[in-house]
Amino acid sequence: MSLSKMLHDIGEKGLVERILSRITLGPRHVLPKGDDAVAIEFMGKLVVSTDMLVESTDVPPGMNMESVGWKALTMVVSDLASKGAIPILYLISLGLPRSMTLEQFEAFWDGLEKAARCYGGTIAGGDTNEAQEVVVSCVGIGSAERVVPRSGARVGDVLATTGLFGRSAAGLNALLRGVEDVDESLKRAVLKPMARFREGVILAKYATSCIDSSDGLAVSLHELAKQSGVGFEVTMPPVDGVAKKFAEKHGLDVFDLVFYGGEEYELVFTIGRNDLEAVRKALALVNGELIEIGRVVPRSEGITVFWDGERIPLECKGWDHFKK
Amino acid sequence: MSLSKMLHDIGEKGLVERILSRITLGPRHVLPKGDDAVAIEFMGKLVVSTDMLVESTDVPPGMNMESVGWKALTMVVSDLASKGAIPILYLISLGLPRSMTLEQFEAFWDGLEKAARCYGGTIAGGDTNEAQEVVVSCVGIGSAERVVPRSGARVGDVLATTGLFGRSAAGLNALLRGVEDVDESLKRAVLKPMARFREGVILAKYATSCIDSSDGLAVSLHELAKQSGVGFEVTMPPVDGVAKKFAEKHGLDVFDLVFYGGEEYELVFTIGRNDLEAVRKALALVNGELIEIGRVVPRSEGITVFWDGERIPLECKGWDHFKK
Repeated sequence: MSLSKMLHDIGEKGLVERILSRITLGPRHVLPKGDDAVAIEFMGKLVVSTDMLVESTDVPPGMNMESVGWKALTMVVSDLASKGAIPILYLISLGLPRSMTLEQFEAFWDGLEKAARCYGGTIAGGDTNEAQEVVVSCVGIGSAERVVPRSGARVGDVLATTGLFGRSAAGLNALLRGVEDVDESLKRAVLKPMARFREGVILAKYATSCIDSSDGLAVSLHELAKQSGVGFEVTMPPVDGVAKKFAEKHGLDVFDLVFYGGEEYELVFTIGRNDLEAVRKALALVNGELIEIGRVVPRSEGITVFWDGERIPLECKGWDHFKK
Repeated sequence: MSLSKMLHDIGEKGLVERILSRITLGPRHVLPKGDDAVAIEFMGKLVVSTDMLVESTDVPPGMNMESVGWKALTMVVSDLASKGAIPILYLISLGLPRSMTLEQFEAFWDGLEKAARCYGGTIAGGDTNEAQEVVVSCVGIGSAERVVPRSGARVGDVLATTGLFGRSAAGLNALLRGVEDVDESLKRAVLKPMARFREGVILAKYATSCIDSSDGLAVSLHELAKQSGVGFEVTMPPVDGVAKKFAEKHGLDVFDLVFYGGEEYELVFTIGRNDLEAVRKALALVNGELIEIGRVVPRSEGITVFWDGERIPLECKGWDHFKK
């Protein structure tokens, strides 16, 4: 069958057959593939998350369908990772336009599969529908030994992240404005983001609180602070050097890129100072990093950042769907 | 706050706050609400399903937002029920247009909540996004003592359903054509369908195979037959009397309504003849019915229906997204 065909040529039945031909279930699965539901034997702490990716709001120019698949799965793995969970299975609910080509669909599914191979866990089932634009709702189900809440940060804890910030916002800016001469790492942050799935499991043993930074660093810090009833002092902002250079060249505000951007899949967490070295070492074993950015302070002190020699309050803003 | 406001007036943050104010988690939940994921302690057979409801294809004229919420949850509960699972929790992933009013949103959430109260299980979290049309992806997570596959029907088993067919297709026809003078039960089948959640758990103790009929009775029978490697002889087609009357009055084909309609949330199942009376009695305790419609025959005999004194082969057709 030629790949230039579209979904309305093969119909839903044909599409479901294609999807089923690409699904292989593991031994823990109780039902065969293609049944009404997915079923497994499970014992322990079950962690579930779902994220929707919508073409008109989440897919910038230059992002192909393989990237869309990769990103959809990454979003949900990042949520699981922030709670210390290892992905076990995924369900993929799709809304697709009838004019989508099979080539586009296969590329999309390639992206999902590559991500699942990278992060672990089985794409086990889902649902297909016709819609006016591409909508991917990805469900991730994972298992955790210890589930890390957003609410456990204690005054005196170290505030840290798994990476530097600013790349996604810079990369998105470059894609939206069609800037060609841009460092690969910035584009990659948008088109092939990595969830910190290995780091999450390690952090779960030590972290007092954890959140993923997909809504932006500022929003993540405000959420952790609110849920934990504490404040933060960010003394060493985690500025990505390449993003900074891009910002300076193109007249963008570095602070904005770092704190108020979004779609950055780092983990933001707090740990006791005594655990700092142990966590650093454990993270190094998976090529991960602990970047200390500040400390937990009493709620009354709010959230402040040392920037250019000044101490400034951090606003709670980032990407907001719906807002004008 | 006035309800005539729209989502873009309150923004995603405001919407998430509204949703969180309507969520109450139970004691098995390990994480507080509004965290990156939902987490529970679990042991046993975990059954997961996801279904997407898309405004442009799944919402007929006359269906209000409360019905949309009700139906979205019903779809996923029906899947769980067909596998013998009791719903534990739901995650709701939303794509919503920025022009949606708060009144519409609250009505939608009312529908979700009413359905969850009816079927059991907690609405525990989800995800909000902007989209060009209303897209609801509902994840249902349930627990089963025995998971009933599609694949266990044996030659000689009784073929049965939990209800009669034709109401949804007739009701949809009435709504699409704006027919006013129509029996309430037909409209109700479209606007407030019921999942057979009580029946599913009872059937799980006895059924050799089970499927929900949301893709239509013919498709459901073909799926059960294929997965089980058997054929079916439908000797007593489960024709709903009111739907039949509607069809006759409006010149519609009764056979089409009963077998080739869809969105009918009955369970279609097979059981050993020896269990027939026990199941009837158990179903009666929850005001459920077992409607015997035929029997399981060898694969070579295919799927046939006795209709108007003739034995006719049943085609595998029903609603197909994408198809022209």
